[in-house]
Amino acid sequence: MAGKYPTSPLAPTSFPALPVIDGVRFATVEAGVRYKGRKDVMLAALAPGSTMAGVFTRSATRSAPVLDCQEKIGLDSTSGAAIVVNSGNANAFTGKNGIEATRAVTTAAAAALGIEESRVFSSSTGVIGEPLPHERVTAKLSDLVAALDEGKIEEAAQAIMTTDTFAKGSTTEVSLPGGTVKIAGIAKGSGMIAPDMATMLVYIFTDAKVERSVLQDMLSALTDVTFNCITVDSDTSTSDTLLMGATGASGVEVTADSTAFLDALRGVMMDLAHQVVKDGEGATKFVEIHVSGAASDTDAKTHAMSIANSPLIKTAIAGEDPNWGRVVMAIGKSGALADRDLLTIRFDDILVAENGWVSPNYKEDQGAAVMKQQEIRISVDLGLGGGTCTVWTCDLTHGYISINADYRS
Amino acid sequence: MAGKYPTSPLAPTSFPALPVIDGVRFATVEAGVRYKGRKDVMLAALAPGSTMAGVFTRSATRSAPVLDCQEKIGLDSTSGAAIVVNSGNANAFTGKNGIEATRAVTTAAAAALGIEESRVFSSSTGVIGEPLPHERVTAKLSDLVAALDEGKIEEAAQAIMTTDTFAKGSTTEVSLPGGTVKIAGIAKGSGMIAPDMATMLVYIFTDAKVERSVLQDMLSALTDVTFNCITVDSDTSTSDTLLMGATGASGVEVTADSTAFLDALRGVMMDLAHQVVKDGEGATKFVEIHVSGAASDTDAKTHAMSIANSPLIKTAIAGEDPNWGRVVMAIGKSGALADRDLLTIRFDDILVAENGWVSPNYKEDQGAAVMKQQEIRISVDLGLGGGTCTVWTCDLTHGYISINADYRS
Repeated sequence: MAGKYPTSPLAPTSFPALPVIDGVRFATVEAGVRYKGRKDVMLAALAPGSTMAGVFTRSATRSAPVLDCQEKIGLDSTSGAAIVVNSGNANAFTGKNGIEATRAVTTAAAAALGIEESRVFSSSTGVIGEPLPHERVTAKLSDLVAALDEGKIEEAAQAIMTTDTFAKGSTTEVSLPGGTVKIAGIAKGSGMIAPDMATMLVYIFTDAKVERSVLQDMLSALTDVTFNCITVDSDTSTSDTLLMGATGASGVEVTADSTAFLDALRGVMMDLAHQVVKDGEGATKFVEIHVSGAASDTDAKTHAMSIANSPLIKTAIAGEDPNWGRVVMAIGKSGALADRDLLTIRFDDILVAENGWVSPNYKEDQGAAVMKQQEIRISVDLGLGGGTCTVWTCDLTHGYISINADYRS
Repeated sequence: MAGKYPTSPLAPTSFPALPVIDGVRFATVEAGVRYKGRKDVMLAALAPGSTMAGVFTRSATRSAPVLDCQEKIGLDSTSGAAIVVNSGNANAFTGKNGIEATRAVTTAAAAALGIEESRVFSSSTGVIGEPLPHERVTAKLSDLVAALDEGKIEEAAQAIMTTDTFAKGSTTEVSLPGGTVKIAGIAKGSGMIAPDMATMLVYIFTDAKVERSVLQDMLSALTDVTFNCITVDSDTSTSDTLLMGATGASGVEVTADSTAFLDALRGVMMDLAHQVVKDGEGATKFVEIHVSGAASDTDAKTHAMSIANSPLIKTAIAGEDPNWGRVVMAIGKSGALADRDLLTIRFDDILVAENGWVSPNYKEDQGAAVMKQQEIRISVDLGLGGGTCTVWTCDLTHGYISINADYRS
């Protein structure tokens, strides 16, 4: 629950100053869904003409709000749009009632805003398997609509937190031929999932004018190299949701070939993804894992994720132990192609192992010095081909056990 | 390191009384490979005419002794056979030197015993990436041969331990048409792997007369439902080795259709497999996960292993938290077929969830009572087909973090 645990040592020094995105307004309220004494519902309202895109969990047991969003996300409309998010209850594994609860919220929000119900997207994060007290949310909708304000994005980032120890935001500006556009996003998430509470939710807004299909293609492609390349504990949420809205209020058009916009959006998504890892439950180290020389990019990702998810590697990092043998183990077990005698392993710039054995010049105290850092890079070259992948993770500490073993007991 | 951590609360009350297996003799010695003040090398010598079978890690970075065993295991021979095992050094990721060190040990053992080198199998378990000081092992071989004794199997079980907190043995007798045969086995292993130290090694002996190919088929088939159905931390060793020798000294023949022998061997393998889980690093709970109603047996195993390896489920069990939502999550993320609304979940006999929601009669204190037990069964029925699988795991505790984060530092 928010506030129960100390702020992550990897947290940024402060929440960034997020600009107003013309055409998007925010409001938050204390609805008492589960938490007491804090804002737990946020509403984002987007101007008519906004295009919406989304990416969702691939879980086979996904939540009712995710199923509802997936039905709506591909539709074209010139109506205004909205995003309603509650924390405290995930409305997941709640059977038919779950669908009805989601529909109650989106219908009420559509009425309060005077927009089509098919343009209201919702997310829920918190305890699963308990009915969402949707009437507590709908009772506050007129208050929320009355409070909508273009300057309240930071409050929105706070209202969606669960076990997060800090609110997460990121922003950038892009100069395009037609003028400058802004991108601003917020996220929550502190385990890759803890269905009781964590889940990753991300909302990104821009005043650029982007066709829905172009926005969707960009968002999907960039998710593969950002949010799909992070892992805290290898567990996948029933509720992970990434929504992006483009209001077009700047009048500046972005097309499919706008690499400047794509690069800027990648930057915001990467920043938010890294912040989620840095708020990983119990995290004390931020770890980048770079795999090169694999037979394919897919193989590279398989190896990288095998390293990133290995409990033995993550505990070694927690213990500041330069245990490169566990990296060899994780490559061996991944199932992707590897040749033991062609492996090269580096901790930051230190050459640790090569040619199937520890490097002759490697000294254990060099590796130990790297492990004492708060940010660590593990590089593996497989010597087989041109496949590469980079992923990010954190260490596995006593804090993770405490948070997840002690939460409900 | 042996003795550093307290004995697992899940350990049997004592090491079982293992019978003499006619045709097998054991010896152990303090060779000082790495550990001081304890036996660290064991030799098992099998009489001429013994058949040998083996199953090994599928890791792409497997150790030199594993590669050597795999070359030899399919050969027929009437020569005597031997198994040499050292603890303290895994001889893994040691390049060409690793192969040479293994060959030095097996050649010396063959000479000391007067048998073919191709009939000497070896295993090494301990630190990886450091050259095996093979001369410390070979220097002791004549002592070992002189000390061979049919009654020393318990000492052998002790000599192969690394982070194990108890020695592991199991035995049974089988009445067959031709008479009674005995099976006795020993094992070590306390993480599914920790390449620094853990690894699973298993050696099983019988005085039955079994053709090599029949023995191999039985061992391979039973491994799939015993040792390949346990997990402590999802990490796979570079050195996992299971060897079985049948001396034929009883004169009682076992053929491919001997279900009595197969059942008895399964019992010994299952017992040893469960003991490895019960010595899982930091384990305080032994958990059976039974999946039924899956679209196929393969799907059932995918779901079962997804549950068994989920850090969130394993920490919840450590915290005695009946967190069935995390079971739903693990099924959802596994990638195998599942329909949320057809799931049934039980903790022991308590019906927790059905029809896509918590069971109307379920009370949280019922689940909490099950979680307080030392042995817990989680059953999931998918409602899709006839696929089933049962796997075994342990909880994820502060003990696991302490053992693996603090070992080398």
